Amino acid sequence: MKNTEFLRKAENLKPELIRTCVELKGEDRLLNAGDEAVYDFGNHYAGYLQIAFDTAGHHPDAPLLFSVQFAEIAQELDHDPESYHGWISGSWLQEERIHMDVLPGVCRLERRYAFRYVRIRIIAASDNYSVRIDGLKAEGVSSADESKLKEVKMPEKDRELDRIACRTLHNCMQDVFEDGPKRDRRLWLGDLRLEALTNYETYRNYDLVKRCLYLFAGSTLENGRLASNIFTEPEPECDFQTMFDYTLFYISTLWDYYCRTHERQTLKDLEPVCMKQYELLQDCFDEKGLLDTEKAGRIFIDWNLQLDKQAAGQAVWIYAVRDLIQIENELGKYTPDLEKDLKRKEKAAASLYDREKGLFVSGKNRQISWASQIWMILAGVVTAEGGRLILENAEKEPGIRHICSPYMQHHYIQALLDIGMEKEAYEKMHRYWGGMIGQGTDTFWELYNPQDPLESPYGGIVIHSFCHAWSCTPAYFLRKYFCSERQMQ
Amino acid sequence: MKNTEFLRKAENLKPELIRTCVELKGEDRLLNAGDEAVYDFGNHYAGYLQIAFDTAGHHPDAPLLFSVQFAEIAQELDHDPESYHGWISGSWLQEERIHMDVLPGVCRLERRYAFRYVRIRIIAASDNYSVRIDGLKAEGVSSADESKLKEVKMPEKDRELDRIACRTLHNCMQDVFEDGPKRDRRLWLGDLRLEALTNYETYRNYDLVKRCLYLFAGSTLENGRLASNIFTEPEPECDFQTMFDYTLFYISTLWDYYCRTHERQTLKDLEPVCMKQYELLQDCFDEKGLLDTEKAGRIFIDWNLQLDKQAAGQAVWIYAVRDLIQIENELGKYTPDLEKDLKRKEKAAASLYDREKGLFVSGKNRQISWASQIWMILAGVVTAEGGRLILENAEKEPGIRHICSPYMQHHYIQALLDIGMEKEAYEKMHRYWGGMIGQGTDTFWELYNPQDPLESPYGGIVIHSFCHAWSCTPAYFLRKYFCSERQMQ
Repeated sequence: MKNTEFLRKAENLKPELIRTCVELKGEDRLLNAGDEAVYDFGNHYAGYLQIAFDTAGHHPDAPLLFSVQFAEIAQELDHDPESYHGWISGSWLQEERIHMDVLPGVCRLERRYAFRYVRIRIIAASDNYSVRIDGLKAEGVSSADESKLKEVKMPEKDRELDRIACRTLHNCMQDVFEDGPKRDRRLWLGDLRLEALTNYETYRNYDLVKRCLYLFAGSTLENGRLASNIFTEPEPECDFQTMFDYTLFYISTLWDYYCRTHERQTLKDLEPVCMKQYELLQDCFDEKGLLDTEKAGRIFIDWNLQLDKQAAGQAVWIYAVRDLIQIENELGKYTPDLEKDLKRKEKAAASLYDREKGLFVSGKNRQISWASQIWMILAGVVTAEGGRLILENAEKEPGIRHICSPYMQHHYIQALLDIGMEKEAYEKMHRYWGGMIGQGTDTFWELYNPQDPLESPYGGIVIHSFCHAWSCTPAYFLRKYFCSERQMQ
Repeated sequence: MKNTEFLRKAENLKPELIRTCVELKGEDRLLNAGDEAVYDFGNHYAGYLQIAFDTAGHHPDAPLLFSVQFAEIAQELDHDPESYHGWISGSWLQEERIHMDVLPGVCRLERRYAFRYVRIRIIAASDNYSVRIDGLKAEGVSSADESKLKEVKMPEKDRELDRIACRTLHNCMQDVFEDGPKRDRRLWLGDLRLEALTNYETYRNYDLVKRCLYLFAGSTLENGRLASNIFTEPEPECDFQTMFDYTLFYISTLWDYYCRTHERQTLKDLEPVCMKQYELLQDCFDEKGLLDTEKAGRIFIDWNLQLDKQAAGQAVWIYAVRDLIQIENELGKYTPDLEKDLKRKEKAAASLYDREKGLFVSGKNRQISWASQIWMILAGVVTAEGGRLILENAEKEPGIRHICSPYMQHHYIQALLDIGMEKEAYEKMHRYWGGMIGQGTDTFWELYNPQDPLESPYGGIVIHSFCHAWSCTPAYFLRKYFCSERQMQ
């Protein structure tokens, strides 16, 4: 279902991208068929590449056929993209095969890539000439304005974490908040929420958040349900997939936006969309107000198919409906029904608490996971003291389901902060994201397992997104909770 | 050595290409990774392609990666370009791998291709959508104007031969007379001479011949020697390679041009270039006036490395210097020295005649080849009667070196015509070029062995040029020697 008025508003908010050029000198080395050269742009870019070729020897008497492989981190270069046969489409692999008919000349690749490293391989040319790479030019694009980024006092260790987190967000900020500039290059609600939060502490591009909110509201499923993600090309169009938790995060993202901007028109425009989601999700609960995961459909929570998502899903609903009540109240509406419903769902949530273990359980098999504990804390179902006890118990629980993604890791850090465990939050943040830094990265990753940093659930790291929106939140934490100016306030 | 005045003249003669569009409807079939579709444009084109993709299923959530293989003849499609590992650069293989980020959409390939058939293979997409090819558009380009082509009365058999020969020339006529629009797409002197001759009987684009003559004269080796071929991009520049016979054909090509156009300025401008070649080649002969093949350097004659090229080379010199004398005389110059030299070289040529065998021999090993006999006839070293006897003896000679290329085959037909053997010329022309027609081609080929039509000295027919300039001369023969109007004149 399209709302042309909302889509028009989104279109009008389309940002002008800021362009940053970096040039690399080539080298004197002559390349022939089979030879390759690797170039390092010194930082991660989302953008365009052009390569200037010169030749030596005789006049080129056959075209040049070469490949260009783009890598976000150096380790990708150890893997041949051709050898990837995993379940994510190989069309995401950043490799091109290009013919050049006229040499010397400049080859400007049309597509946008995410990269720090570029490997050029000469596949075929002729014996009568050699190729010399005269220079490369990268043009990074972003809707993040570096001049808006406030210098804040931080110890060097924090500064590094902040710099990489900002770079991650910077390169995900394009026409919309993308999940990753390499893959999927798409606007997802779950990523948007965390990007928006980090953006408020960093680049403060409020219009980009607003644009994304209108895009989601501008193209929904036929019944008005928000999709989990939106395609923007060739025309804005929502994906067919919904996710219970992502749908609810729309409410929180709108409320967060309003809290930052106090921009009432957007709140007014989009409040009905939020109420609609609330109504549509009523069917997902049983008679006791407990989430029925079969009725709820897909719930994301974490990149973990073994995870039982009932408890966390219940908590996300509570978390979001708290924000919905605030939206309603802000617009001067009474919310007795909403509050009553919230109480009911809170009570149902409490029923998932296993007193013996001192932990929340989830689903028929009473699965115990970090995700369930963390989300119950974030939803405010337990007190700060209760939350601290739960996390203590969780540490001791054998067989507890672990956190998989940086996305869930963010929520863990947030939960620690919410219950006053700043020191633990700070240390765990540094341990987790610092582990990626130890791998020599310029941006934070879609997936990171400290036990096996380069493991791939996709069948090859060449398909991974190493600059991924949901991993950008250390800048949010550092600037909101840990930097000295803030603490001294 | 550059002559900027000549290059300026060549540049001013650069033709506007005539564009012909052909659209093919797509099909309803849905394509997924691994699927392919083959399209047939019904005729051979040198030009551009665009493909319109539509999709079915969900909104595309990953780029489309596909390959496009272009084929001049259907048989090429039986061969995977990837499996080619021959000695000619694989960069000539007409295959691209392309990513499309936005679907539905139109992909316009930037490069020019030579093709009738197009195979599109879906390499990777995603399970959420299928691709449907909505349509294809080919845009053929040529500097040959079909409206200039005179309708001539011919039997159907001749008409077919003429049509395919004209198409061959048509698709080789671009910014310059190319040898083949697939490979090498370059201006070669040997090809130019035959293309110009055929052009005079067909498309009559005199300016294109003139442009090519100025291009060769505009960029020569440092000593003024004409190269065997010229590159035109990014700037006109001669190749480093020379060929004894090709150098001499410049003289004949200029004279042929003048005979058709009576355009004196070009003759005046370029006569010194011809005299310069004559002078530079003086060193290639021994004290008796016999060609020293070591001094002569590369001599082409035919695509045959086993061929001894002394006799044919000697004959080509005589053939061209006859034309040089005509040029000089036309410009009012006396040529006693040239004529004396010609006589001396004719006498030396006669010394290669083996009276016992009634055939010309070539080189130290007294090699006997068709090429030697044919060129001695073309050079007018023997009378018509003498030529007929020689060809009769050649037919009976065991171990005689055979003709390899359509280029040499052209000279055979011309020799037959020169000595009054029209019937044999006509039959042999039909037998040879008709054999290619039997293979279902729209254009004539670079290489054709009637005993093994698809043999490849290059290691794979996918690298062959199936539309090759030097194979276009049946249109010249038919229109100059065999069509009824001409015969009735």
